[in-house]
Amino acid sequence: MKVHAMTPIVEFHFDVGSPAAYLAWTQVPALEAQTGARVDYRPMLLGGVFQATGNRSPMEVPAKARYMNSDLERFAHRYGVPFSHNAFFPINTLTLMRGAVGLQLREPSRMLAYVDAVYRAIWVDGKNMNDPGVVGAVLQKAGFDPAELLALAAEPEVKERLKAATQEAVARGVFGAPTFFVGSQMYWGQDRLDFVKEALGAHT
Amino acid sequence: MKVHAMTPIVEFHFDVGSPAAYLAWTQVPALEAQTGARVDYRPMLLGGVFQATGNRSPMEVPAKARYMNSDLERFAHRYGVPFSHNAFFPINTLTLMRGAVGLQLREPSRMLAYVDAVYRAIWVDGKNMNDPGVVGAVLQKAGFDPAELLALAAEPEVKERLKAATQEAVARGVFGAPTFFVGSQMYWGQDRLDFVKEALGAHT
Repeated sequence: MKVHAMTPIVEFHFDVGSPAAYLAWTQVPALEAQTGARVDYRPMLLGGVFQATGNRSPMEVPAKARYMNSDLERFAHRYGVPFSHNAFFPINTLTLMRGAVGLQLREPSRMLAYVDAVYRAIWVDGKNMNDPGVVGAVLQKAGFDPAELLALAAEPEVKERLKAATQEAVARGVFGAPTFFVGSQMYWGQDRLDFVKEALGAHT
Repeated sequence: MKVHAMTPIVEFHFDVGSPAAYLAWTQVPALEAQTGARVDYRPMLLGGVFQATGNRSPMEVPAKARYMNSDLERFAHRYGVPFSHNAFFPINTLTLMRGAVGLQLREPSRMLAYVDAVYRAIWVDGKNMNDPGVVGAVLQKAGFDPAELLALAAEPEVKERLKAATQEAVARGVFGAPTFFVGSQMYWGQDRLDFVKEALGAHT
């Protein structure tokens, strides 16, 4: 797709460990098609965001966790996308998100396929992505060399870049995932995509 | 309005201290008109819900509090209703909610006018409803006798009833405000009114 100078941009801060960010991820193609905007992917470490802001996962409040599961299922049904709870939640996403940042840095054209494979493994297939053996099998099946990706994720520059991206998100006001920006306007949650579309409508 | 045996019911758990519950409150007439449902008002003490569930106000996380203010403004704009932040937030709503429960018990036909006056004082006029003098003036202007209401709120039966209503809400799974029930299905947040409407559509 040719991107014009005037194409509006939606920045999308995400972590693969967030089920809400997964649901938002599934809606990006429709968002781009409906608005003519382009999504600028901003991998971040949600655990780092929580630590820096004092926010915490809704899953830490048992009553909220129970409700969130129904809520996510309702949206998955509305969107018509597959979604399963992950029995291994929460997933430690540090290495996985370093992989996303590493690809964005070195092989940007492969980043989306990587994130998509990881999202599906966690939030559709319910895999235990805390287990390096499972991660390796998922990546191999998606056409990646797990050893190469692990080496990439271990590079000091890649580690630093994820840390900087997370700090930058926090500095902008991000406290959870997914978070969208249209210009200076921030929108938190997959359930705010309608407001993101409205904000883009004003630009197109 | 005549209520038929088959009129679907939406239970609405609320506290006057919650700006999201205020926004939901403004949408009740449209909800009833669009769905033919009747709203069953369930006053509760949100502070008690937080204490029992381990949940907390989004306002306790500074980055989230800043965002929530824009988010509430966006919805107020979408709904076309007045909304102002309250400089005295959080309001201790114990006596105010006892007043709501007391009226529901003794003078149910006046409960809505009371809650409406309190919501407007807090979330439209930005008044300091922590100040008994301000509360008295607001209630008087709305046609209530402040001394009578204070006496009502101090009745042991009324105090017990608010405590029981709060415990019952928690037992049902409530962890925040507003919370709606359509049958056994729970919906949290003024931003889930579309799902509430969908759920009612299946019944009408």
